Amino acid sequence: MNRTVEVGVLGATGMVGQQFVALLENHPWLSLTWLGASGRSEGKAYREAANWKLSTLIPAATADRRVEASVPGRGPRLVFSALDASVAGEIEQAFAAAGHIVVSNSRNHRMDASVPLLVPEVNANHLDLLARQSRDKGWTGAIVTNPNCSTVVMTMALAPLRVFDLQQVVVVTEQAVSGAGYPGVPSMDILGNVVPYIGGEETKIETESTKILGELRDGRIEPHRVVVSAQATRVPVVDGHTEMLSVRLGASPDPDEIIAALAAFAGRPQELELPSAPRHPIVYAPEPDRPQPRLDANRDRGMTVTVGRVRACPVLGVKFVALGHNTVRGAAGVAILNAELMVAEGRVETS
Amino acid sequence: MNRTVEVGVLGATGMVGQQFVALLENHPWLSLTWLGASGRSEGKAYREAANWKLSTLIPAATADRRVEASVPGRGPRLVFSALDASVAGEIEQAFAAAGHIVVSNSRNHRMDASVPLLVPEVNANHLDLLARQSRDKGWTGAIVTNPNCSTVVMTMALAPLRVFDLQQVVVVTEQAVSGAGYPGVPSMDILGNVVPYIGGEETKIETESTKILGELRDGRIEPHRVVVSAQATRVPVVDGHTEMLSVRLGASPDPDEIIAALAAFAGRPQELELPSAPRHPIVYAPEPDRPQPRLDANRDRGMTVTVGRVRACPVLGVKFVALGHNTVRGAAGVAILNAELMVAEGRVETS
Amino acid sequence: MNRTVEVGVLGATGMVGQQFVALLENHPWLSLTWLGASGRSEGKAYREAANWKLSTLIPAATADRRVEASVPGRGPRLVFSALDASVAGEIEQAFAAAGHIVVSNSRNHRMDASVPLLVPEVNANHLDLLARQSRDKGWTGAIVTNPNCSTVVMTMALAPLRVFDLQQVVVVTEQAVSGAGYPGVPSMDILGNVVPYIGGEETKIETESTKILGELRDGRIEPHRVVVSAQATRVPVVDGHTEMLSVRLGASPDPDEIIAALAAFAGRPQELELPSAPRHPIVYAPEPDRPQPRLDANRDRGMTVTVGRVRACPVLGVKFVALGHNTVRGAAGVAILNAELMVAEGRVETS
Amino acid sequence: MNRTVEVGVLGATGMVGQQFVALLENHPWLSLTWLGASGRSEGKAYREAANWKLSTLIPAATADRRVEASVPGRGPRLVFSALDASVAGEIEQAFAAAGHIVVSNSRNHRMDASVPLLVPEVNANHLDLLARQSRDKGWTGAIVTNPNCSTVVMTMALAPLRVFDLQQVVVVTEQAVSGAGYPGVPSMDILGNVVPYIGGEETKIETESTKILGELRDGRIEPHRVVVSAQATRVPVVDGHTEMLSVRLGASPDPDEIIAALAAFAGRPQELELPSAPRHPIVYAPEPDRPQPRLDANRDRGMTVTVGRVRACPVLGVKFVALGHNTVRGAAGVAILNAELMVAEGRVETS
Repeated sequence: MNRTVEVGVLGATGMVGQQFVALLENHPWLSLTWLGASGRSEGKAYREAANWKLSTLIPAATADRRVEASVPGRGPRLVFSALDASVAGEIEQAFAAAGHIVVSNSRNHRMDASVPLLVPEVNANHLDLLARQSRDKGWTGAIVTNPNCSTVVMTMALAPLRVFDLQQVVVVTEQAVSGAGYPGVPSMDILGNVVPYIGGEETKIETESTKILGELRDGRIEPHRVVVSAQATRVPVVDGHTEMLSVRLGASPDPDEIIAALAAFAGRPQELELPSAPRHPIVYAPEPDRPQPRLDANRDRGMTVTVGRVRACPVLGVKFVALGHNTVRGAAGVAILNAELMVAEGRVETS
Repeated sequence: MNRTVEVGVLGATGMVGQQFVALLENHPWLSLTWLGASGRSEGKAYREAANWKLSTLIPAATADRRVEASVPGRGPRLVFSALDASVAGEIEQAFAAAGHIVVSNSRNHRMDASVPLLVPEVNANHLDLLARQSRDKGWTGAIVTNPNCSTVVMTMALAPLRVFDLQQVVVVTEQAVSGAGYPGVPSMDILGNVVPYIGGEETKIETESTKILGELRDGRIEPHRVVVSAQATRVPVVDGHTEMLSVRLGASPDPDEIIAALAAFAGRPQELELPSAPRHPIVYAPEPDRPQPRLDANRDRGMTVTVGRVRACPVLGVKFVALGHNTVRGAAGVAILNAELMVAEGRVETS
Repeated sequence: MNRTVEVGVLGATGMVGQQFVALLENHPWLSLTWLGASGRSEGKAYREAANWKLSTLIPAATADRRVEASVPGRGPRLVFSALDASVAGEIEQAFAAAGHIVVSNSRNHRMDASVPLLVPEVNANHLDLLARQSRDKGWTGAIVTNPNCSTVVMTMALAPLRVFDLQQVVVVTEQAVSGAGYPGVPSMDILGNVVPYIGGEETKIETESTKILGELRDGRIEPHRVVVSAQATRVPVVDGHTEMLSVRLGASPDPDEIIAALAAFAGRPQELELPSAPRHPIVYAPEPDRPQPRLDANRDRGMTVTVGRVRACPVLGVKFVALGHNTVRGAAGVAILNAELMVAEGRVETS
Repeated sequence: MNRTVEVGVLGATGMVGQQFVALLENHPWLSLTWLGASGRSEGKAYREAANWKLSTLIPAATADRRVEASVPGRGPRLVFSALDASVAGEIEQAFAAAGHIVVSNSRNHRMDASVPLLVPEVNANHLDLLARQSRDKGWTGAIVTNPNCSTVVMTMALAPLRVFDLQQVVVVTEQAVSGAGYPGVPSMDILGNVVPYIGGEETKIETESTKILGELRDGRIEPHRVVVSAQATRVPVVDGHTEMLSVRLGASPDPDEIIAALAAFAGRPQELELPSAPRHPIVYAPEPDRPQPRLDANRDRGMTVTVGRVRACPVLGVKFVALGHNTVRGAAGVAILNAELMVAEGRVETS
């Protein structure tokens, strides 16, 4: 099977856009042939338009490519969106209306009842919402989204616990600055400091998670009944969100059962052996002081969530630490996995 | 009233010892006349024995003082202990037996049934345990302790909530490196990183808190019934522990009532106008992104706990952020406040 | 003598403006009664207009003061300028023309031949340029400036070496992020990183220094003949610029003579016992690993430059390390010292 | 040609030892079959003996390998040494005497007149010293060393400038904490701070460089006549040493000629196409704010030195910034390149 599919990136010059460009270099199925950005960047070589901030070098194949205007109908059928939320809503709709399949990391359409909000290991079947989306919206294209970066990491760690009757979660996040884009967090705010607030983040974690963990029934998502309470903090870390969870499970499994469930977790990306799928979406780190962003965020090129310290919580039952790479597994990487899933399931050619 | 009392510091060269030396400079009641340290430092000038690490300069009056051997019976009656836990147990006992009043920051005797574990705004009356201590131990001196740094901050924020029927607490701490002493945390572990583990810390937070918040009845402490679950993490911050709490209160007050209770909080140190007592032990910061260690830890010379973001928690009822200076309010400062309380109550001359 | 002089601050809400507000709290001579800012802030309380970023709390006396429009002729005769260079040029001129004495930290007029560029310990007599300024410009007021933050630190360390026939300097600076204002340096650029470039900084260091170290002759400044070569880098430090210098001196003094000259250095501020003058403008730290920003920047409330490691340089003769607080001694503090000098010399009432 | 050569690592558990283990994973010529460490680690699995601190995972093939005692005669003929300088001197000698070829990163034998001190692109021919070494020492094995990490980076940037009559260098280094090993630099010393001192470092930079840049004549190294003056500082960076150089060249080339010389630089590793040789040992970054450790240290898997900002220096003639990965190009990587060179030149089997 020859699956080479041309793809583009909307908002290619920002932090998440750069991560898309980096991850698509040498991709076996997806060929990056189009870069969209705002008018200011139009016509410039990507290396000039993007203020490259990743610690890997700018891919040679893309560095000299011209950045184009974000005009619906131009560019490949499949486009990733790394657009800023201030403009993503309308542009993504226009692209979907013009026949593009928009695989978006932006927040604007995530909670739309007919838009899949996907972490492919968790709820790949939510893609079936696309039939309803097509009906409701009348688009010849489609919009598929992935959650907020913190929510991706958390829902991956919670998904294997649904079998134990997942009821309540109290989570505190310690989030990396790359999640805020560029220029993003001023250094005066975060050097040697903690900021216990990230605008809108707690609501996203609390609401997106119930949709992702929910079930598709009769063409709509029934949210999971879990109640999540989040406190989001920013810490002086470049990449990798660390999350401390306390969880109430109706079934009261002991820590070993939970660890076994986490380690055994896999989903459609593993079944289909998608190119970006880690063999184990969750790795359990047995060391007492793990996971840590500097040591664990890059596991499996940033696509694996590392969990550690599963132990009893005297208040809610069980507590543990989860960590994932926020701009890879939590943003560009999970979006690419969504696109791979759609390609493998034949949804790109046919939807 | 002339209250000048000579004091010494055991373990004067370490990080907490240095903070004692800094805070005792120009103290109106307490006069630092004796520095005890391990044999290696004996006889050296303090400026040579201590590898001074505070961002204020070494006090001139102490810099050239000779460090002495930690021999019970030598030095003033009132001694602060900043000893490492590996040696504090025995040395502090020997000093108490030899007639010293040991006001200790070390963990060794904190949970002893006849040793007061004090945060003076919270449980000043626990000093009455000293009568029992004298009986049980037969010491002509005494040992009085303060809690672990994280526990001080947390119990100050929880004390005003006891009136609302305090039942459960889930807390995540983001702790500064100064809490680990010197050399303490290697930079390779914490630069641009988070370590979600601090040995023994979670147990201290969970157990010490119930003693502090408990009541003295019939000569013994009845622990508070609150159940605390802690996850302790280390972050790249020099000074200031930030704590994210979710709390269940039987009385279900609304956030404004909680804020009012926090802001009105005061105790014996405020009544007695002790020299190190902040006018308001807790300040509520109304800004959405506070408290922050860099901006709030030094409030009132490090003796005030700043609370922010009181809001509803969908799981436990209410959640908020608390912050305090870990080596001042959480260690040397609270110990000095304990000593001031004892002086003001006439317990130093008479006990 | 009753020297209470009302002062205002232009650009009061920015980082340097905040430092002015902090340093003027409880000032014995200068009373802050006027805050000027851009139209956006006009009419707001200072606490709302300024996004306060200092680790000391916002002064109560100023927090509720209304911010006013920067209209020449309004506000006190003596105004400090913390304006951004993009607007400082014209606004400062207009204020001087309207009769204000503008004591400016901005770069715009520093190299003007009739504007004093002062570090008061180094070249207090350059104030005599004001006679020429009055003649040349026809202003009823005046403009007095202080150098770039890195240049202040460097010229203070070099001034005592002029007696040894100062000829050449190679300097590398490691500069704190507070020097770039707010939002200033993005955290993505500087967390765990070094940026070996600060726009315009090297030229300022190389040119401003020769004016400051120069001599006033016949009503004009004859630049010092020293040749300076600078490389400026940004490091993840909040406050305190560290500078590594290699210096060629015609007289070839040995290190002890240099240390003696540095330690003996004093000037008009010390003679006049100005309120912000440190007793010793330069302190020599004998420890092998000093100065360090975290330990030394706050010496004498940030007004002292600390020098260390004076030793032979096999290429240029002597090398050493100098450090100063960039927003205090390097900006707001030195400007306040300039104003104190003018008050003490009777230049505010009479010029 | 089948070049598979078995290799071991002395001091395999430390920071540089870990970098050897990481870089030797899947090496095409060298097969890591032996791990030596101190008695304390003997017999343990490597994953337990080493406190793994790299951000890449511990190689699976080595994780379970037993650590062995460092007994001369045991292990493969070719051993890398990552030993601490406190023990390296004697152990390396004993291994060389017992017939091992010791490719060492330790400082102990670097300045020995019969020991090659190699940066293979710069002075590969210094390997011919081994004939004299064999004569002088009577060893059946040999010792080959690489320079101090800062010196490697600097001499690579200076080597192409020898053709312009290299005379004087003033260099300031801003060094990463990984260079100090583990636990190494305490976080209390370096968080938000700069330490302008690294014990012994400046002397190493000043002396090792003249040997490396020198010429082999009549069986001995004639040091290069360049005079180097170094100031070494530690900054809060994990990996990557940044160096600011001012250089006097007798030939006074203009910046473009220097850039061309840097970009054209290559040596024996490139001729022989050694597995670890970067195609371009030096890359010139044209952006005004480069090189930066976070963005450039990993170029070509850490083996490339990035130079930027070549421009005129008013004191010495030319100045620029150089950067390299201190534990790869500056330690384990350059040692492996040394070993590859010896294998390719047939010196491992025959010497």
